[in-house]
Amino acid sequence: MKKVNLQQKFSLFSEHWSPKIVGELNGQHVKLAKLKGEFVWHKHDEEDELFFVVKGSFKMEYRDRTVEVNENEFLIVPRGVEHKPVAEDEVWVMLFEPTSTLNTGDAKSELTKNNLDSI
Amino acid sequence: MKKVNLQQKFSLFSEHWSPKIVGELNGQHVKLAKLKGEFVWHKHDEEDELFFVVKGSFKMEYRDRTVEVNENEFLIVPRGVEHKPVAEDEVWVMLFEPTSTLNTGDAKSELTKNNLDSI
Repeated sequence: MKKVNLQQKFSLFSEHWSPKIVGELNGQHVKLAKLKGEFVWHKHDEEDELFFVVKGSFKMEYRDRTVEVNENEFLIVPRGVEHKPVAEDEVWVMLFEPTSTLNTGDAKSELTKNNLDSI
Repeated sequence: MKKVNLQQKFSLFSEHWSPKIVGELNGQHVKLAKLKGEFVWHKHDEEDELFFVVKGSFKMEYRDRTVEVNENEFLIVPRGVEHKPVAEDEVWVMLFEPTSTLNTGDAKSELTKNNLDSI
């Protein structure tokens, strides 16, 4: 029941593509992440995923198109849809997704984060 | 899979205490609301509720304390906990909560909104 300040939480980490848990409700996690560069193509078979841009912008690539998401905008990627986030410059995002969600979905690799820190 | 721009969505309505649905994922709704004044004491027996402040600030009153929530901060009210939002000046909030959530929880009144608009 304590409030969470996004700026303060983002000041606690600098690594890219490493989501941090900042809240939990109704079986969902609220996560913060800093993205820069290209991620991997992947999908989540059972989870819809929300990306809200707190600072900066990024492009979400789908197989048939690309959507640019800017500050104070969000995008919901439905389960089963292949996607790849690409951030030319660093972008800060807030994620909202089920607690079961793995960052790389079905594309396990060295980028996969199995145990996320709560901050 | 279209993005949602918060400023654009907030420009579409002006009434207070009338949440609008702007997204759905994993059985949860993303809602936007403009708050001003005092709401009613209530609780949600089955739903945790997240309030993220997009613009302005408000106070969440609990029975034993009050938490002020400012821009770029969020608060999760756990299920079963009585709460009352109070906004001295208009505040814009984004809500995450299960699709089953009724705005006034267990305190049905003329403030209750049974059928929310999607915008």
